[in-house]
Formats: sequence, structure tokens, C-alpha cells
Amino acid sequence: MLVGIGPGSVEHMTQRARAAIAEADTVIGYVTYIKLVQDLLEGKEIIRKSMTEELDRAVSALEAARAGRRVALISSGDAGVYGMAGPTYEVLFQAGWTPECGVEVEIVPGASALNSCAARVGAPLTHDFCAISLSDLLTPWPVIARRLNAVAAADFVVALYNPKSGRRTRQIVEAQRLFLSHRRPDTPVAIVKSAYRRRERIEFTTLAQMSEADIGMLTTVLIGNSHTFVRHGLMVTPRGYANKYDMDSHDAHAGEKAGRSLSTGLLGWLDALAIAHASGDSIATLAERYDLPASYIAATLAEPPPAVAQEAPLEHEETGA
Amino acid sequence: MLVGIGPGSVEHMTQRARAAIAEADTVIGYVTYIKLVQDLLEGKEIIRKSMTEELDRAVSALEAARAGRRVALISSGDAGVYGMAGPTYEVLFQAGWTPECGVEVEIVPGASALNSCAARVGAPLTHDFCAISLSDLLTPWPVIARRLNAVAAADFVVALYNPKSGRRTRQIVEAQRLFLSHRRPDTPVAIVKSAYRRRERIEFTTLAQMSEADIGMLTTVLIGNSHTFVRHGLMVTPRGYANKYDMDSHDAHAGEKAGRSLSTGLLGWLDALAIAHASGDSIATLAERYDLPASYIAATLAEPPPAVAQEAPLEHEETGA
Repeated sequence: MLVGIGPGSVEHMTQRARAAIAEADTVIGYVTYIKLVQDLLEGKEIIRKSMTEELDRAVSALEAARAGRRVALISSGDAGVYGMAGPTYEVLFQAGWTPECGVEVEIVPGASALNSCAARVGAPLTHDFCAISLSDLLTPWPVIARRLNAVAAADFVVALYNPKSGRRTRQIVEAQRLFLSHRRPDTPVAIVKSAYRRRERIEFTTLAQMSEADIGMLTTVLIGNSHTFVRHGLMVTPRGYANKYDMDSHDAHAGEKAGRSLSTGLLGWLDALAIAHASGDSIATLAERYDLPASYIAATLAEPPPAVAQEAPLEHEETGA
Repeated sequence: MLVGIGPGSVEHMTQRARAAIAEADTVIGYVTYIKLVQDLLEGKEIIRKSMTEELDRAVSALEAARAGRRVALISSGDAGVYGMAGPTYEVLFQAGWTPECGVEVEIVPGASALNSCAARVGAPLTHDFCAISLSDLLTPWPVIARRLNAVAAADFVVALYNPKSGRRTRQIVEAQRLFLSHRRPDTPVAIVKSAYRRRERIEFTTLAQMSEADIGMLTTVLIGNSHTFVRHGLMVTPRGYANKYDMDSHDAHAGEKAGRSLSTGLLGWLDALAIAHASGDSIATLAERYDLPASYIAATLAEPPPAVAQEAPLEHEETGA
């Protein structure tokens, strides 16, 4: 059982996470996470792993499970987000494991650092967001830099994991430089350390000052998008209701409709594109206007207009799930 | 209390989420989420909101809280991810609320759909990932398209929220087109509906066939990066251990070191960049070689080489938090 324990307070663990640890005979994890749940560990075999032993941690888990023990391998946050789930499966496959071989694997999801830190600062993640690790221990720097550049340009909210360590002090400076070429210097940034733990520390700053903030191994950095604002000590990213509604009356603007795509949504945009092209705008011109690849514009114009299901039910503005 | 209830099974709610709902006098939410937690609702005032009433839902919450009631406003997954946290704060600010006015606000984090769905298919999120909503009800299509294009090009794992509805059937086709211009057609894609709920359904497909899959309002689509693979029915994205380690012996490759940046990490890359530039490669050439902005290459070359803290402790390959 690969268990995400959440931010590290018992309150914010799921029932399944607690049950999985309670069911286990053997609990394995990095020493900091073992400490976070030590009240649950009475009577169990505890294997504390230290740094740079992630692959060994997964091997120990498999060996114990093959010997018939129920094993909980714990990660902070969510085990699938820069946690042990991926490395464990890689080790399992390498060792010839299959789902039918008698050792079952369960991933127990938890709130990742980005969700926990976001909850402590307001509502920064409301719109499209991404997570990027600034750790180049396993990933070449140009790959990381290209990702930082892409999401800065495309106006994502960005959560930086592993932003800085004793040795890795320059990566956050590079990230700042890449972002400043696309975002305003006063873009809100939240620096969150140890969310929901005893030593929690939250600092609001801006992109221009991000690299000077007190950032360490237990920190998550949240960079707002171009609409994110800070008010009354809370960092909030708008969902976009103002694109459709008057925020006082809650009436839809002229031409917009509750439960329907914006006039500038896909269908409206396809119409506008076709009209512009028919009236003489070249594909290159349109690609530049919308900052989209010319190949995409061309392919889209070549498609027949979509048939719309007129009687389909309204949907809500929020997530459907 | 803005409560993220997780994927919708009681097991996967956090203790704080359950406690918050138990503490509440009034529970407000979209009718599907209210149903998911109805065993906790005995004796409480329940306000079921239907679609397109998100702003009203937030207003009802504020009115009830101002009248002295403890209010739980529930979202599936995490309230901060395309959930009620952002819209609620916007409504609160609009209504003149401040943190000192007597109505306290707490965001209770939960596992978002991307974490829950990922846990059900393997370990797809292990590396840098993002979430994009295909809903154009509040967001113009070109904004969404630019984001899809940027993350496809920069090789993120991508979770698509709100991928399709009764009316919005073309957005997923457009997303597929944008991705296919950057990713292999056989890129693994997982289609996950109602994770951890009674009607859970999981389908593995590829990018080439993504738009034909059975996708609806309760579906999250997970698109792998260029290294993601499917094996024994599990979708796994490597963390990059193979960049540093031999996966049989777990020995580091020649020139690499456990707990240290890769030779192609930032410092090694800066060295290589400086050497290439000094030996005659132009900034434009280097920008093209690494697919990074020329302005970034130029600014980086203009910086003095960083001082490295030689005695700093090793760090682990996984997340520091």
C-alpha cells in the first residue's frame, strides 16, 4: 500500500490512509514521514530510509510483501506526485512483478503539497495550474527550463516543488528569470513551508522578489497567473466568472448565457476564425493574432463546422466531477 | 468551511473534512456532492444547489454564516481545484467581507480528481504535470488552446478536467489535434470516470484514439508524457531514475552521483553553455539547440558562474516536502 499521508497532520489524512497504516505489519518511509505518523506505529516493524535510497525503499517493500507481510510505504502528500508510486512500480516491474503474482498493490491518494499549501493561502489554484520540480537530480536542466518557460508564457498558475536546497540555490533564480520574461514583476507569489505542521510559515511576495524569499527543502512556491490577486492577506485566482457575469447582480453580460460556452468559447471562436479567413486574413496572420501554431489554425479551418446538440442539458461552470 | 470531500467515497475523505461537515449546521453543495455524503447529514439544514448557481451557492453560504450558522460548502475533490474556493472568495470580497469581520473561512484540502484518478491507473503523475479544464463556459477558447499547445510541446503529463459534455463535444477533438502535433500517436491516455465510486470505469487508450473514447461529465482524462508507458494494465510515468542509475544494480552511471544534480543539471548545463559559447556557438544557435528563448540564453551567459556550497548535505531524489 503506497500511502499518501497528506501534509503531515493526522487530521488531514484520509480514513483509508490511516486504515492502511493500521493494517500494515511493516511501515517503510523516509524518516521525516515516519515521524509524522509515529502515533500510528505501535507494534509494527518500522524501516526508516534516509535520503538517496528511494529505489532501495521500494525493493524492501517488495521483499517484505513477498515474505507475506502487509507493507505500507508512506509518502508525504500524495504518493503519485513526485512520491514513491512511480519509482515503486518501476522497481516492481524490473523485479518481474505482475499484478497476478500474489503481491497486490494499492495506491492510497492524499492531498498533495500543492493542494494543502493552496488551502493555507486562499484559492490560488482555481484555474489551470501545473506542478514543476526544480530538482535536477534526475532531470536535465533544459527540460525543466523549457517547462518553466512554456507555462509562464501560457499563463498557468505554477507550483514549484523542490524549489531550493543547500546546494541547489540557483534554480529558483533561473525560474524567476524565465517567469519575468512573461509575467509582471508584481505577480503574487506565496512561499509556504510545512503547511499544517508545527513549523508552518507562509510568506507573500512577488515574482520580482521570489528568489530572495526564505525558501528551503520543506517549501512549496505558488506563482499566480496574470489574474491572481492578493486581498486581505489571501491569494485568489479568479475562475473567470467576470468573463460572463456582472459580479454585483450576477446577471450574465449581453451575449453570454449561464450554463453555456462563452461567445469566445470554441464554437464562437471557430465562427470568428472562419469569417476572418473568408474576409482575407491569412493563416499566418491568424496564427499570430491568437498566438497559436499556424498548423493548428490551418487544420481547424479545414474541418467542417461542428454539429451542435441544441437540446443538450446545461452544464455548470465548475468541475463536472 | 469550504470542504473538499475527495473522490466521493467516505474512506477517502480526510478526518478534517468529515469533522467539518459534522460541525456544520448548514451544508450547501451541488446536488451530486450532497448525495455522496448524505450519511453525514442527519439533522442538518441542507441547501442543494443545481447547475449554474455557483455564485448563488457562495452567497447563501455567506448569508447563513452572517446569521451565526456554521456552514460547510462542499466540493468534490479539492475545493481549490476548479472548485468553490476561488468563486467563494470572489463573492465574499464583493460583499465587503474581510477576515476580521467575524465570519471565519477555512479551506479543507482533499485529494483532487487528478490524484484519485491517477491512483486508480498506476502512477501517471510522477513527473511534472498540469491540469487544464476544457470548459469554455468561463474561459475563451484561444486561452485554453494556447495552454494545451504549450504543455504538449513541453512534455508535461496532462490531466484534462471537464473534457466533454452534452454540448461541448468538439473541445476534446481540438485538444487531441494540438497534442498530436507534439506527441506520438501511441502516447498512453487513461480515461477515468467516477474514481472510487460505484460506477467507476477505467479505459486505457492512446492519443490517436482519445476523442473516440467514452468521455462524459464525470470523466478525467490523463495524457502521459513522452516517457509514460503502460505495462500489466498500469500506466506509469518514470521519475527519471534511469537518467542517473542502472536500474538493475542501482549503481549511479559514470559521472553521476546519488543525492547530487545530474551532470546535465543546472550547473553542468551552465558550464556546457559557457564552453559552447566561448568556442563560437552564437546565442541564436544555442537557443535553437536547447529550444529556449534567446533572451534567456543571453541573460544566463551574462551571469557570473554560481558559487556552490560544497559542504551542503545530500538531498533525496524525491520531493523534499
